[in-house]
Amino acid sequence: MNHNVRLYVTGGTFDKEYDERTGRLFFKDSHLSEMLALGRSRVPVELRTLMMVDSLEMDHDDRELILNQCRKSETDRIVLTHGTDTMEITARALGEAQIPGKTIVLTGAMIPIAFGSSDGLFNLGAALAFAQSLPPGVYIAMNGRVFNWDNVRKNKDAGQFEELA
Amino acid sequence: MNHNVRLYVTGGTFDKEYDERTGRLFFKDSHLSEMLALGRSRVPVELRTLMMVDSLEMDHDDRELILNQCRKSETDRIVLTHGTDTMEITARALGEAQIPGKTIVLTGAMIPIAFGSSDGLFNLGAALAFAQSLPPGVYIAMNGRVFNWDNVRKNKDAGQFEELA
Amino acid sequence: MNHNVRLYVTGGTFDKEYDERTGRLFFKDSHLSEMLALGRSRVPVELRTLMMVDSLEMDHDDRELILNQCRKSETDRIVLTHGTDTMEITARALGEAQIPGKTIVLTGAMIPIAFGSSDGLFNLGAALAFAQSLPPGVYIAMNGRVFNWDNVRKNKDAGQFEELA
Amino acid sequence: MNHNVRLYVTGGTFDKEYDERTGRLFFKDSHLSEMLALGRSRVPVELRTLMMVDSLEMDHDDRELILNQCRKSETDRIVLTHGTDTMEITARALGEAQIPGKTIVLTGAMIPIAFGSSDGLFNLGAALAFAQSLPPGVYIAMNGRVFNWDNVRKNKDAGQFEELA
Repeated sequence: MNHNVRLYVTGGTFDKEYDERTGRLFFKDSHLSEMLALGRSRVPVELRTLMMVDSLEMDHDDRELILNQCRKSETDRIVLTHGTDTMEITARALGEAQIPGKTIVLTGAMIPIAFGSSDGLFNLGAALAFAQSLPPGVYIAMNGRVFNWDNVRKNKDAGQFEELA
Repeated sequence: MNHNVRLYVTGGTFDKEYDERTGRLFFKDSHLSEMLALGRSRVPVELRTLMMVDSLEMDHDDRELILNQCRKSETDRIVLTHGTDTMEITARALGEAQIPGKTIVLTGAMIPIAFGSSDGLFNLGAALAFAQSLPPGVYIAMNGRVFNWDNVRKNKDAGQFEELA
Repeated sequence: MNHNVRLYVTGGTFDKEYDERTGRLFFKDSHLSEMLALGRSRVPVELRTLMMVDSLEMDHDDRELILNQCRKSETDRIVLTHGTDTMEITARALGEAQIPGKTIVLTGAMIPIAFGSSDGLFNLGAALAFAQSLPPGVYIAMNGRVFNWDNVRKNKDAGQFEELA
Repeated sequence: MNHNVRLYVTGGTFDKEYDERTGRLFFKDSHLSEMLALGRSRVPVELRTLMMVDSLEMDHDDRELILNQCRKSETDRIVLTHGTDTMEITARALGEAQIPGKTIVLTGAMIPIAFGSSDGLFNLGAALAFAQSLPPGVYIAMNGRVFNWDNVRKNKDAGQFEELA
């Protein structure tokens, strides 16, 4: 029941840092390695950073790149960290591409990991678990729950993910 | 794919606190509610504290109580927080009891939640995910992985869980 | 050697929070009360929030208000939390006003308290200590050091405070 | 007004770590360097670890060693980290020795630094500030306050330091 997992990093709130000089949030390095260490993960994970962007700035080319990486991955269990604002769009792009035999789970965070109060470690644990246990498909794992790519949206007022219907 | 989950608390490292007067670790209240809030969990969870003990002090009666609670639970997705030292013993007791139709996932932490560096939030996320996605059975979710009750042990030297064989 | 201390809050990096909806930093409530509790402070402190602003947005009227509050304060030991970007300007305004008999210590943070890695708690401890132990005057307490109002500047490249000469 | 400071480490709650194998607290390395980095301290500090013990286990020889180090130190501003349980005893030993020309400040923590909720960073900031600003003497800096060595005790019930009278 235990699988290798490919972990693709694309940025998002997960990896935002505080810039002392400007007082703004920015991307430096990914926190994913240290998060796996903190969680004492023994899942065989290959970590690869595809980009480090705010998901509001992701464009069609970025999603093509993500799609190609998922297609090419020799590992069929994939976790993708992603900004929450357009997570459902990327999930849809991956879902409609109908990649056979792969379980792809998108996850992210509402609060940056660098904040003490982040939900990121919880989400990463859940996403890794869903990626290992669910049948092929494209999913979003947020709020401890899992959603199919064709039945999920971010409720921006409530700050949580929910089914469409 | 989303289920109600019953969350049983039994204590363990998860919930150890630092006692300022004695300089020792002790149990006060469970951290599970605040952990679910931190993870922004929207899983419908019923939380119940069965006991607050170090798992080295758990005896046969304690395990009977846990077994009965799992049997009686009207929810068939169960997460059980448990000290890591004897987690495999309780898992075995539950597994051998052959409770039909229920997915029971034991999890815990190597480092108390009250420490900044705890693995607990990661483990809780994973345990909730496995409890929602796996077929009936008794499992241990630790280190991002999942183990069947009859093929798991804590490697005390390495401080991690592994298969028997 | 122990004195009542008046603690004036003006905002600054100290009190920046992460807004989940916009992904930006903003001011909500002051963290000073919880920081005093965390430090287990037994200093008799009267806490008063004068404003909640980024110090780059502080204008002449804001500094007049701060000056008047310091003049009127019946407590002669004062700590003022302040954004670091213009801390030296407010210190100069207070210093040139030559308020007699009062020890006024400005402090702040390079990293918001809401981040796990903030310097704020260290700075608050130092500022309270300097406010209790130094003779009347206007000081900046940052980086564990203390500076007279007429001999201090923020070195924005190094991200630290230093003497002018 | 800024001085070199000698920082002597003796252990105490400050530096307790959680041992995953035994579930007990123990001493590994001192956290003082990382705490100074976290506080962005620019105080010229020479850090020296004298011992790593629970202050309840400190004996006469240990206190002789501390006393000799304070006497020999070429720096006349000294901060000493110490367990809180017998801090007043060591302060008394140092005070009665009447070391001329030196400002010695003892400090500690009620909660280990490794816990998220520690008071240690606040106390370290205050101790460094008092060490730089107070005249020669032996002091305890706890709870944001400062006490002379001959007028202080730990109130174990309240978990705080207070004057004798």
